[in-house]
Amino acid sequence: MTAYSSLEARFSRLAALEGAAGILGWDAQAMMPDGAAESRGEQLAVLHGLAHEILTAPATADDLAAAEAEGGLETWPAANLYEMRRAHTHASAVPQALVEARSRAVSRSEMVWREARRDADFARLAPYLEELLRLQREIGQAKGAALGLDPYDALLDGYDPGMRRSIIDPLFSDLTSWLPGLIAEARERQESRPAPVPLDGPFPIETQRQLGLTLMRALGFDETRGRLDISLHPFCGGATDDVRITTRYDEADFSRALMGVLHETGHALYEQGRPAEWRHQPVGSARGMSLHESQSLIVEMQACRSREFVAYLAPLLRHAFGRSGPAWEAENLYRLYTRVVPGFIRVDADEATYPAHILLRYRLETAMIAGDLAVADLPGAFNDGMRDLLGLDVPDDRLGCLQDIHWPSGAFGYFPTYTLGAMAAAQLFRAARTAEPALPGCLAQGDFAPLRTWLRTHIHGRGSLLGTDALLAEATGAPLGTAAFRAHLEARYLGE
Amino acid sequence: MTAYSSLEARFSRLAALEGAAGILGWDAQAMMPDGAAESRGEQLAVLHGLAHEILTAPATADDLAAAEAEGGLETWPAANLYEMRRAHTHASAVPQALVEARSRAVSRSEMVWREARRDADFARLAPYLEELLRLQREIGQAKGAALGLDPYDALLDGYDPGMRRSIIDPLFSDLTSWLPGLIAEARERQESRPAPVPLDGPFPIETQRQLGLTLMRALGFDETRGRLDISLHPFCGGATDDVRITTRYDEADFSRALMGVLHETGHALYEQGRPAEWRHQPVGSARGMSLHESQSLIVEMQACRSREFVAYLAPLLRHAFGRSGPAWEAENLYRLYTRVVPGFIRVDADEATYPAHILLRYRLETAMIAGDLAVADLPGAFNDGMRDLLGLDVPDDRLGCLQDIHWPSGAFGYFPTYTLGAMAAAQLFRAARTAEPALPGCLAQGDFAPLRTWLRTHIHGRGSLLGTDALLAEATGAPLGTAAFRAHLEARYLGE
Repeated sequence: MTAYSSLEARFSRLAALEGAAGILGWDAQAMMPDGAAESRGEQLAVLHGLAHEILTAPATADDLAAAEAEGGLETWPAANLYEMRRAHTHASAVPQALVEARSRAVSRSEMVWREARRDADFARLAPYLEELLRLQREIGQAKGAALGLDPYDALLDGYDPGMRRSIIDPLFSDLTSWLPGLIAEARERQESRPAPVPLDGPFPIETQRQLGLTLMRALGFDETRGRLDISLHPFCGGATDDVRITTRYDEADFSRALMGVLHETGHALYEQGRPAEWRHQPVGSARGMSLHESQSLIVEMQACRSREFVAYLAPLLRHAFGRSGPAWEAENLYRLYTRVVPGFIRVDADEATYPAHILLRYRLETAMIAGDLAVADLPGAFNDGMRDLLGLDVPDDRLGCLQDIHWPSGAFGYFPTYTLGAMAAAQLFRAARTAEPALPGCLAQGDFAPLRTWLRTHIHGRGSLLGTDALLAEATGAPLGTAAFRAHLEARYLGE
Repeated sequence: MTAYSSLEARFSRLAALEGAAGILGWDAQAMMPDGAAESRGEQLAVLHGLAHEILTAPATADDLAAAEAEGGLETWPAANLYEMRRAHTHASAVPQALVEARSRAVSRSEMVWREARRDADFARLAPYLEELLRLQREIGQAKGAALGLDPYDALLDGYDPGMRRSIIDPLFSDLTSWLPGLIAEARERQESRPAPVPLDGPFPIETQRQLGLTLMRALGFDETRGRLDISLHPFCGGATDDVRITTRYDEADFSRALMGVLHETGHALYEQGRPAEWRHQPVGSARGMSLHESQSLIVEMQACRSREFVAYLAPLLRHAFGRSGPAWEAENLYRLYTRVVPGFIRVDADEATYPAHILLRYRLETAMIAGDLAVADLPGAFNDGMRDLLGLDVPDDRLGCLQDIHWPSGAFGYFPTYTLGAMAAAQLFRAARTAEPALPGCLAQGDFAPLRTWLRTHIHGRGSLLGTDALLAEATGAPLGTAAFRAHLEARYLGE
């Protein structure tokens, strides 16, 4: 057995462990009774611990060095070896004691965060967040030393391989220059028209579920390799060949669950479309969080909130819920689904104001990791940013810096991928439309085949063969930029 | 850290791996989409492989020897160490190559069995079953050599620690002497009365489910640490603090799902009642398959098919399904739930004829493991036994030796535990009733507390502290015997 094939066997075991943890994680959100939380935590800790042991074992390091020295691999195995090395470097960079200290700090901090958020009491979280930030900075330094990166880039690289502040900063700086103006102009135009008619419930949950399933199938979700269930916080998870998406239903408002299902289906199509031969190897993984988010947003924002698709959706909704009247006309639905309303909560934000939430968080978390912003000063800085970027005065920290679980979970370096994903989605959608001129007409008939086929070929089926920018350049002719996103927002919000 | 405490840490990791595999196994039966079967198989194989590695690691062996030499442990830790040694001996006895060969043979044989059963074509299964039997005999010999047991006892010990042919043979021989006569007499008496009125459906599934949940709660099932779901083959599985039971609904017949839920709840109460402090250690496990089956049967057969409980159940059923009339009177329901009808299929058998199915299978599988019965001769021997024990002529192997998955799954040594469990259930129920004279009166009011409390104290909470016979002797005053079972069957089927 060559060193490389022994590595393939080892990473195939790792993929199985990750898959097992993925299903157990899904179960914890969608099925698990409350009293099992502690046992489940232990199960996941053991699985992650064993995976870390296998990944950082001396035999793995030896095989990596031997396989790299041997060379002579074809394109896919060579890229696979590169991804193996990356995973190994990330895992080995951080001493086991630091990994465990961080894991315990995250558990404590997440628990305190739930209460602190409920009571809008940042002071209660602060000491825990300080401790966690200290550990995250240490981890960033350790990974940075191993990867030759600054600490924030090293953390970012864990979520989005190859992504760097040097790529993000110019993109976000450009965005900052025109986004507030675009939001203001969009709102002015919006206010100059009559407000859209709201949709009155109730909307039976089972009808909502069936509607979601119908659209999932239309999008190409393979039900023999995945499921739709319910959880408090919607997500796309599970395992290879077993993609589990979730949503949360509200009888008074079907649109949120429906758009959530479409969003998660975008993620799921990426997972289901990964290269069949390499699905259990690192090179067969999705490329990173920015591209993953681009796949959810290309479905939800680019395709499914388009005028063409909403025209197809309108009669479907009328039929499903047995309604009619002005509220249910396509144009009214389109206005509802593209309404711009600055608000406090990121996850409720519309497509135009969402990036403002991300610009703020990116600014704050890079400063925290650099040691330029103390945890104690976070609420003030957060609120200043909200005033600055969205013109809103945050009334309390529950609606401010306590709203997201990311930082209390130790996820620093994750936030920018949401907006990088939105940019990539616009860029990919434009390229797909150029390559497949029939695409908008097909959406108007509920036919996603041209979009899906294009994404399968140019994104899903390529796994982690190339870096994000190289993959985007091959698919769209250019690395990640803001132009397509700006053009999309202008067309949708400043056009007719 | 002492050798013993290092063992506790290692076995706690093993318990987490087992729990993870338990939830993934539940998911495979209750939730998983078909296309995920191969990935799931790989996940489970990796988890079992890692558990086997940890269990048989030289460090584990060293710690076991050191802890045994140290001595000085209190009662529970000492029993825990004993169970650790047992698990280690079982796992280490079989060479890795044989474990893997068996695992592959089981996969093939189960797959072929499904088709062979469907087509009543034993010849198709025969070569696969032969190969698997060969491997099982080899495993029995290897385990036997390590445990100082004959091969069948060694296999049996894997399901029911301490159980031996020398215990079973006299019990089953006694049973054989009176059971056919009892069945004949019960049927005569049954025929001398008017047939019970059947219950006409349809019975809505959701009503059936709610009824099952109501009775689970009454029995004491803790819903914060478990769930009820649906699967093709009902079972009790899951993990510590997360007990998952399943059933299968039929709109035309609610009784089967309901009795199934009661049966699995009996298993679940055992799992939920294991000693809290030791739940993640070997000594905190359920004692073995005979006692496990005793807990399902004490609930289903002893308590819930009793005249007292059926009197409580009857108005509940009338109310739930909105029915009335003679079919729904308690006495008619009792006759339906205690009807004796010899049939071909073990899993459909009533309480009186069920042991005949087991006597036959025990006779055949001990002969197969001893090398006294060839696979080619199995159908003939099976059919002879059915004629002999139940007076039935088996028309084809689908209704004969192809009906159960046990042998094609390599489960030799499992069958006797069903009937040993039935005996233990009768013996335990009699002891509980003696200790708690109010017990039958409580059942008549749907109050399971006295029975549950008694079982918690005498069985569930004791885990694997004692052997099966010692545990039964402490709880009932005698080791496992046939007397209580015979008295129970005579009272129910030959009494008024």
